[in-house]
Amino acid sequence: MVTSSPPVSPATPASASKRFELLTLGDELLLGLTANGHLTFIGAELGRRGVMLDRNVTITDEAEAIRRQFRESWARADVIITTGGLGPTCDDRTREAIAEVLGQELVFDEGIKQTIAERFARMGRRMTPNNLKQAYRFSRGEVLPNANGTAPGLWAEQDGRVLCMLPGPPNELQPMFREQVLPRLAALGLVRAREAYIQIRTAGIGESALEAKLQPSFDRHGAALSAAFCAHQGQVDCRLSSPSGELNDEALQAIAAECARDLGEDFLCFGHDSLAQVCADLLRAGEHTLAVAETATGGLLANAFTNICGASKFFAGGCVCYSNESKMQLLEVPEDLLSQHGAVSAEAAVAMATGAAERLGADYAIALTGFAGPTGGNEANPVGTIHLALYSHRGVWSRRLSYPGPRPTVKVRAVNAALDWLRRELVKERATAGGNPSARQGSG
Amino acid sequence: MVTSSPPVSPATPASASKRFELLTLGDELLLGLTANGHLTFIGAELGRRGVMLDRNVTITDEAEAIRRQFRESWARADVIITTGGLGPTCDDRTREAIAEVLGQELVFDEGIKQTIAERFARMGRRMTPNNLKQAYRFSRGEVLPNANGTAPGLWAEQDGRVLCMLPGPPNELQPMFREQVLPRLAALGLVRAREAYIQIRTAGIGESALEAKLQPSFDRHGAALSAAFCAHQGQVDCRLSSPSGELNDEALQAIAAECARDLGEDFLCFGHDSLAQVCADLLRAGEHTLAVAETATGGLLANAFTNICGASKFFAGGCVCYSNESKMQLLEVPEDLLSQHGAVSAEAAVAMATGAAERLGADYAIALTGFAGPTGGNEANPVGTIHLALYSHRGVWSRRLSYPGPRPTVKVRAVNAALDWLRRELVKERATAGGNPSARQGSG
Repeated sequence: MVTSSPPVSPATPASASKRFELLTLGDELLLGLTANGHLTFIGAELGRRGVMLDRNVTITDEAEAIRRQFRESWARADVIITTGGLGPTCDDRTREAIAEVLGQELVFDEGIKQTIAERFARMGRRMTPNNLKQAYRFSRGEVLPNANGTAPGLWAEQDGRVLCMLPGPPNELQPMFREQVLPRLAALGLVRAREAYIQIRTAGIGESALEAKLQPSFDRHGAALSAAFCAHQGQVDCRLSSPSGELNDEALQAIAAECARDLGEDFLCFGHDSLAQVCADLLRAGEHTLAVAETATGGLLANAFTNICGASKFFAGGCVCYSNESKMQLLEVPEDLLSQHGAVSAEAAVAMATGAAERLGADYAIALTGFAGPTGGNEANPVGTIHLALYSHRGVWSRRLSYPGPRPTVKVRAVNAALDWLRRELVKERATAGGNPSARQGSG
Repeated sequence: MVTSSPPVSPATPASASKRFELLTLGDELLLGLTANGHLTFIGAELGRRGVMLDRNVTITDEAEAIRRQFRESWARADVIITTGGLGPTCDDRTREAIAEVLGQELVFDEGIKQTIAERFARMGRRMTPNNLKQAYRFSRGEVLPNANGTAPGLWAEQDGRVLCMLPGPPNELQPMFREQVLPRLAALGLVRAREAYIQIRTAGIGESALEAKLQPSFDRHGAALSAAFCAHQGQVDCRLSSPSGELNDEALQAIAAECARDLGEDFLCFGHDSLAQVCADLLRAGEHTLAVAETATGGLLANAFTNICGASKFFAGGCVCYSNESKMQLLEVPEDLLSQHGAVSAEAAVAMATGAAERLGADYAIALTGFAGPTGGNEANPVGTIHLALYSHRGVWSRRLSYPGPRPTVKVRAVNAALDWLRRELVKERATAGGNPSARQGSG
């Protein structure tokens, strides 16, 4: 669940009144067979550059539907981005349908053909005639080369409007959007050349507490400063901007640094890094290793770390111990302890964390045991109860948490709580180890 | 990635020409802060009842934008479903904006107020005055009670059209849609009362091979039978329907059973069960237990099983072993083996599977070791190489797989391959154990 404050006002006066529309094409979206990830990606990328999409329309890839929708969108939007329908097969009709509405010719482009042919040759595959369909571009338009697939993107400026057509596969669309589309839009003054705001990411503090903590800073800078909050699970972002342009980037950065100092340990990073990424950076910087032991979260915590490229540098390993036997076998949790306190207990969590650290030779260990629901649970530990334990060279501690909600929500929240606890411990460690205790600058 | 064949034609003559439109409201969607899960959910639910959404429009929750879009949608669609904007705060303006376009009065409903007040009392919280906003309904309309939140859904039939307004939180929207909206739409003949098709889910066979294997069955039933294919990662669905209604449900079921027999082990289930769910059912039915050991997939395989409620019945546990030490410590993989063959090798996979089964006392074990990328890899095992091993009482085997693509894709594909291998082994086991070797009927 995300609750959203009013978005940051676009800080690009030039584009303040421009309307951006995203057309996502494909029956598989309308049938719920695949999620509309293009909206999530493009919406977020534009948002960072100070623009909020005006509208996203998803329609079938049938030619008449495309013509009808595009005609309507072209009449009202200033920038139209389409995704999908550029493939080589006969049901990819977007190029033709849109050319018709624009009154443009499609012309065969030898350069595109050459690039596609080279790609096939490189992969040792034979180019089929239908691939040549992808070599057509608008007569008054440009080509956005595709480094990761055969269909290039198409670009046209006409009637004071911009049309940008992107291929559907995310691994083709995303680099094309970042590397080609955003710079082109920025050059036309339609999006900011850099991020439109500075994002302060926090963890373990609620939205209203965060606002209260930052208010003194905000007050000092008055109306020139705009702050917008956005709460995710266990994490709240605060975006600072200066819609009037009165505060330049340097001034905003100074204010952000001041806010980060005021927040202390609640400060996670500037930008968009995940909790797991911040923990990973801290572990690497301190040359620490980590082990995890899970029951209820069943591998989700280990997966959060192993999603990070180069995780083997700090991640010693993890155990998913559903049965008492596995806790005894893998983590050397004493049978007596389990029978006396139960597998869902602070004692079990502490023993699991200690066992994981010792068996895997790690400096830090996190253990989670609990009932994610919907079944299980007992009087002392109803469904939603999670016992966390954190092991470090400074000691081993436990905490009891309780989350309402369905199984996947409980799992995610428990993992976030565990990550945030580890992060705070690592920040303390860095401070006592003589590192710089002030807020670090995260990567964008 | 999903490739989609033409969708099943709606098999409800009454609604064949009706246009369904979904309006999803919220800045957080346009800013890419949250994925549009309502499209995925509602699109899929309607698809199962023989209806494909005509269009999904996502707009800001600003009142004027809602009025403009709703006016346009109301003029062209027969059924309009809206999501979001029914909350208690001042930025929830959907109800008022739409009432204005419909020319309807909003009337205060004592019944809704009572329900909200009771909910607050039950939770020991105080109802604030702004919650009373949620007690308004259309004067010529009905209320869809909300068992999981304060905002009820709203329903109106007007101008030969249907309007259905749903609250934004998925845990409120989804049961309301399944339990109230679908039955109402079915009663009006706008969707089928039951699933519009029978879905045959397969695993480990490609789309064209599947079609070829089923063609003899299709041929026997001629034009009365329609088959549509939809490929997911490592899995292809075939949906059988009879658009003309010539084949009744019984006849379709007989054909589906025949197809399942023809497919043998490639048949996964009827309906929508996941690979992990089918494995879980087979493990439980055979009273088997399972252990897993992972490197590259880093907990994703364990998580696939532990997402299933009641996993502790069959899931003994798992290890995520990034380091050589962890493979030696947790799984007793001999150091010599790792230094001779490397941690990414068939030998290591076999030793990991065996170690997991023995340490955790499980009948079956799966191990995965490989390079998910983008870094790592060597000449013998480039990025994307995964060694799988499967342990059972019949023996232990290994397989070498190679996947292109980014890290998350490699992980998902490797997990699916592992699950499918386990499934096939469990199906063989069931057959030799004297179980019914013919296709099983999955849950819907």
